[in-house]
Amino acid sequence: MSNSYGTLFRITTFGESHGPAIGVILDGCPAGLDIDEAFIQSELDRRKPGQSRITTQRKEDDSFKILSGVFEGKSTGTPITIVIENQDQRSKDYSHIENAFRPSHADYTYQAKYGIRDHRGGGRSSARETAARVASGAVAKLLLKKSGVSVAAFVSQVGDIKAPHYTELDLGKTEDNIVRCPDQATAEKMIALIDQVRLDRDTVGGIVTCVIQGSPVGLGEPVFDKLHAELGKAMLSINAVKGFEYGSGFEGIKLRGSQHNDEFYNEGGKVRTKTNHSGGVQGGISNGEDIYFNVAFKPVATIMQDQQSVDKDGNEITVSGKGRHDPCVVPRAVPIVESMAALVMADFIMRARSSKL
Amino acid sequence: MSNSYGTLFRITTFGESHGPAIGVILDGCPAGLDIDEAFIQSELDRRKPGQSRITTQRKEDDSFKILSGVFEGKSTGTPITIVIENQDQRSKDYSHIENAFRPSHADYTYQAKYGIRDHRGGGRSSARETAARVASGAVAKLLLKKSGVSVAAFVSQVGDIKAPHYTELDLGKTEDNIVRCPDQATAEKMIALIDQVRLDRDTVGGIVTCVIQGSPVGLGEPVFDKLHAELGKAMLSINAVKGFEYGSGFEGIKLRGSQHNDEFYNEGGKVRTKTNHSGGVQGGISNGEDIYFNVAFKPVATIMQDQQSVDKDGNEITVSGKGRHDPCVVPRAVPIVESMAALVMADFIMRARSSKL
Amino acid sequence: MSNSYGTLFRITTFGESHGPAIGVILDGCPAGLDIDEAFIQSELDRRKPGQSRITTQRKEDDSFKILSGVFEGKSTGTPITIVIENQDQRSKDYSHIENAFRPSHADYTYQAKYGIRDHRGGGRSSARETAARVASGAVAKLLLKKSGVSVAAFVSQVGDIKAPHYTELDLGKTEDNIVRCPDQATAEKMIALIDQVRLDRDTVGGIVTCVIQGSPVGLGEPVFDKLHAELGKAMLSINAVKGFEYGSGFEGIKLRGSQHNDEFYNEGGKVRTKTNHSGGVQGGISNGEDIYFNVAFKPVATIMQDQQSVDKDGNEITVSGKGRHDPCVVPRAVPIVESMAALVMADFIMRARSSKL
Amino acid sequence: MSNSYGTLFRITTFGESHGPAIGVILDGCPAGLDIDEAFIQSELDRRKPGQSRITTQRKEDDSFKILSGVFEGKSTGTPITIVIENQDQRSKDYSHIENAFRPSHADYTYQAKYGIRDHRGGGRSSARETAARVASGAVAKLLLKKSGVSVAAFVSQVGDIKAPHYTELDLGKTEDNIVRCPDQATAEKMIALIDQVRLDRDTVGGIVTCVIQGSPVGLGEPVFDKLHAELGKAMLSINAVKGFEYGSGFEGIKLRGSQHNDEFYNEGGKVRTKTNHSGGVQGGISNGEDIYFNVAFKPVATIMQDQQSVDKDGNEITVSGKGRHDPCVVPRAVPIVESMAALVMADFIMRARSSKL
Repeated sequence: MSNSYGTLFRITTFGESHGPAIGVILDGCPAGLDIDEAFIQSELDRRKPGQSRITTQRKEDDSFKILSGVFEGKSTGTPITIVIENQDQRSKDYSHIENAFRPSHADYTYQAKYGIRDHRGGGRSSARETAARVASGAVAKLLLKKSGVSVAAFVSQVGDIKAPHYTELDLGKTEDNIVRCPDQATAEKMIALIDQVRLDRDTVGGIVTCVIQGSPVGLGEPVFDKLHAELGKAMLSINAVKGFEYGSGFEGIKLRGSQHNDEFYNEGGKVRTKTNHSGGVQGGISNGEDIYFNVAFKPVATIMQDQQSVDKDGNEITVSGKGRHDPCVVPRAVPIVESMAALVMADFIMRARSSKL
Repeated sequence: MSNSYGTLFRITTFGESHGPAIGVILDGCPAGLDIDEAFIQSELDRRKPGQSRITTQRKEDDSFKILSGVFEGKSTGTPITIVIENQDQRSKDYSHIENAFRPSHADYTYQAKYGIRDHRGGGRSSARETAARVASGAVAKLLLKKSGVSVAAFVSQVGDIKAPHYTELDLGKTEDNIVRCPDQATAEKMIALIDQVRLDRDTVGGIVTCVIQGSPVGLGEPVFDKLHAELGKAMLSINAVKGFEYGSGFEGIKLRGSQHNDEFYNEGGKVRTKTNHSGGVQGGISNGEDIYFNVAFKPVATIMQDQQSVDKDGNEITVSGKGRHDPCVVPRAVPIVESMAALVMADFIMRARSSKL
Repeated sequence: MSNSYGTLFRITTFGESHGPAIGVILDGCPAGLDIDEAFIQSELDRRKPGQSRITTQRKEDDSFKILSGVFEGKSTGTPITIVIENQDQRSKDYSHIENAFRPSHADYTYQAKYGIRDHRGGGRSSARETAARVASGAVAKLLLKKSGVSVAAFVSQVGDIKAPHYTELDLGKTEDNIVRCPDQATAEKMIALIDQVRLDRDTVGGIVTCVIQGSPVGLGEPVFDKLHAELGKAMLSINAVKGFEYGSGFEGIKLRGSQHNDEFYNEGGKVRTKTNHSGGVQGGISNGEDIYFNVAFKPVATIMQDQQSVDKDGNEITVSGKGRHDPCVVPRAVPIVESMAALVMADFIMRARSSKL
Repeated sequence: MSNSYGTLFRITTFGESHGPAIGVILDGCPAGLDIDEAFIQSELDRRKPGQSRITTQRKEDDSFKILSGVFEGKSTGTPITIVIENQDQRSKDYSHIENAFRPSHADYTYQAKYGIRDHRGGGRSSARETAARVASGAVAKLLLKKSGVSVAAFVSQVGDIKAPHYTELDLGKTEDNIVRCPDQATAEKMIALIDQVRLDRDTVGGIVTCVIQGSPVGLGEPVFDKLHAELGKAMLSINAVKGFEYGSGFEGIKLRGSQHNDEFYNEGGKVRTKTNHSGGVQGGISNGEDIYFNVAFKPVATIMQDQQSVDKDGNEITVSGKGRHDPCVVPRAVPIVESMAALVMADFIMRARSSKL
């Protein structure tokens, strides 16, 4: 297992879907940061289940408690521990899958790797683990705010319904609708599609786009910990993610170098680029332009339909869809993507302090 | 800087494009592995410049020397050091860019981050660094072979010319042509496109697809070091990579869960999936099916054309294209992708030894 | 801050002396280990305050709760989280030192390093943190038992009162008296000394000796993570430790090589040494003989006397001794030393799985 | 194997005693440091064999070559690689121990751990590896000099001959004699003892004391990476080291707290301590006073006498003393101790940049 992420600003998460609690230790937060608990709660609320008709109806308050590392409202440089108790566990809901391997879930691979698994709600493989990422990501955002860095994600695609490019959107409107797409017309189509998919007892995938603005120049550690490589790993570590691209991404391969290159110019003493196919990263290091990337989420594996599978003993069985699940994960994934991006950026801000003498 | 990759099977690379040498220390290779030097050389030869008309004409033998860690042909458990001297350095070629920031190169970001840079050939940011990855990746491949794991990459797209899906190809034919696409008809179109691009003094991007077969079940370390997350990071750390997707990837988001889920069945006592949208990875852990993924490479930034830019002092200047470069990087990227994939897999094989009591 | 220890079997601890709780995440415990909660509690009880007249009278039950990683009594391979709530906090006891720097405490250095500190009971620098080490060390001991490895520490010196060499003692008698010295006659003298020191409102130092028996051959990772180097670091990371020596230690320097060398012989097919000045470790790797070492603890810094010091503003002040503290720390340090030793050994057992092909 | 040391300022060493070369990659050296090659050579010269009649007569120039990371005399932030070729290999000298396990050497443990070993001169377990530490330690010293930190070690004991406490010595005189003891009268006795031991075809141990002056307040990362814990690990990782103590060390345990505590006072606005039993470290963090510690070295295991042992097949054999070796290792250990101390301090200086907002 590897439950830690980050080099200097480092989280270690724990907890199973139906255990007593989940949580996180954040080690390496510099001392002196104001820890705004209301902000942390508001971030958890953006992720929590049951927040709208297009998300799972599992009920969790996701209220948290800070056990260490904060004194009189400020970080002290010691590890910050945040715990969220599990409330609505309904473990009985999962007795039917105690021995079954649900298709495209982690049941089989966990069983094979560890020889044992907490089957209730997927145990450690449940996306419930991401609440710990959001709680610590909120602290990262507080740190980034001090450096003038903002992180804003939104739903840019559901099934085949796509939003315009981020440069044509007002990212301040993301929270204006339940699907978290800042383009209202597109949002309505997305919601209609998700409603239909839910009625079909099915699920659908989507894309979350994330934009980081105000990054200082010089973040990212070549050659292996390039800024976009860490962002990619952080995103790919989120449940259900199947792809990552930044800047021009997969589409950019069709361009010629003469079209794709971002020419530099001098804007009042600041080195800028005329275009931004690079997505704000050159040679693995931020260049001060917007950092933007897309994260592809597959359709949620839990569907309300019968599926063929096998059980622990190798018997071929039928797995029925039961429980409470999301027809489309991307609206709730928005704060998760932001949190992982914030954690990566906070870590690189700390690491960049060592670049020069 | 972060020049190490891997947890137990770990490489640390060094060297600049026009310094005396580049190389790698591989720490954590288990003792007792036969180190086949001819194989290492053959892998380096697949990556080396000047191997065909569609690659850069820089001449490097890329012959290597093992300085440590091997005794009487076998690994001893001590660090294996491989050094490749730089021969055709022609540093004069780069005097014209000593103070210039080449568009979409790492010149500006290195200068900003470190306050100093070896400008000759891009210094540390040059793709020459990847030779060290290939040399150590070859050792990883030797280890994988012991476990029955194979890694095969090929060029699946150049510009907008695409090869069929890997399941329709004979991956044994990848080396049959200079573009490294196992479909001969597609390969010819790709080569024609690259020839045209070179004549245009321009460059074009492409995709390398990689297929890992024979993986044991149980590789990958949730929650952060998921198998595909590490593969993604490893690929994104390669120069010019802009995107990574595995299994159904970005296309899969359009599917419904009922279409996308991979149902299990029992094949003679072995748990198999009927389809493989999961790309051989579920919950971040290998399930024994083929692991496959796509890696997007942007068009090479060095073009033989004039471009607008700025210099170190902020003056707006024109950068001219000079030197010897690749019109399309993907043919030479094939062994690099394979090497990074092999390093990831070798590391996870060692890490998996700790999963159970 | 660096609150993690271990490479594969890895703990991350958190918590302040007077915060809501302290605890630990243990990541990398292999799946399938029986987690004996009664044993964990019994280990915590050996460390807890108030257990005898020669320890501090602070009252803490040190009862713990497992939040994750254990399912139906067994480890699952996911992170094991153990939390111990703080009960007897009496923070008012510390208001007099809010701005004062207590001599030979960490008050000044924490304030200088972080610019802020939780002054209550020393905050993070309090030895209360070691309860988290003991809780996770107990799990390490359960793992070691599976491999036939035992870890036994005892008090071998208090002030200038010394116990005989461990080979002349019955280590099964360590718990027979409150000072944890298995030689009853020596124990009585040690207790008498500590009683006197307490009456003097003073403190005294001592040595804990630790013996690891049944170690497999081959543990330890040269060249930097030598077995004794990690044991040394682990011990030196415990509050109040000033020195570490293993095998012949500081005394051995006076010997000639011809006296000090441990000659090998063949004992029924097993390679053994006639003497054990090496302390069971050669070249940083265990050789199967007893591993033994000494850990020096300074006299506890908190004394019930007036001392000169300065405060945060640089004023010269008098600090008075108040609160509840240990006149000699070594009796309670015995389980802490054992725990850190067990954590080191468990980690090396996991790491050794990667030595050979 | 674990051949890396340090968190941000990090070395990875390689090489066997009789392989083609040994060397080191230093990753994380900040950009802009003047790399004084003459100084590096002078440090290597202090460690090299054959420098006086009381050291081994093996001849090695220990001239080095920098392969990367330095441009126009300055560090660039990329990995600095230093290679030292082995010259006087005389591998034939070792054919007699190809299958033998030399007493108190690493022959047996390496063979058991790895199943294979390069027996020539001890292979990787040879102290020849420390030349790589000295080369990179010299770079660390150059960095420390920028921060006003000095590191000075000297021989304080050989056998039972002891030098006065460091505060009574002029550390500028350490290089004035071949045993590296700044007290000339003591030095002469030490040299006489070593001469006698060599005539006896035997060896003897000793102590190296190290003093670090000018350290900023705030270095060290609690709770596990305490400053003295890392110093301890670094020292214990050096060949032949058996013990480490700092400040009052093992002797301090006999003191009462009221004697041992270092009272604070205000010296012109600076917080100072009246005494320094703490050895410059409180709570694992430097307090600005002198950091000093002792490192115990056992008598060298190679003696010019017959010893009983076993071979790889378990046969009981006699091992004869041959080759060229040091009768006492401590004079040559002085620069090694300094180098490891400098590497630890340089790392903590970089890490301390992240303590506060």
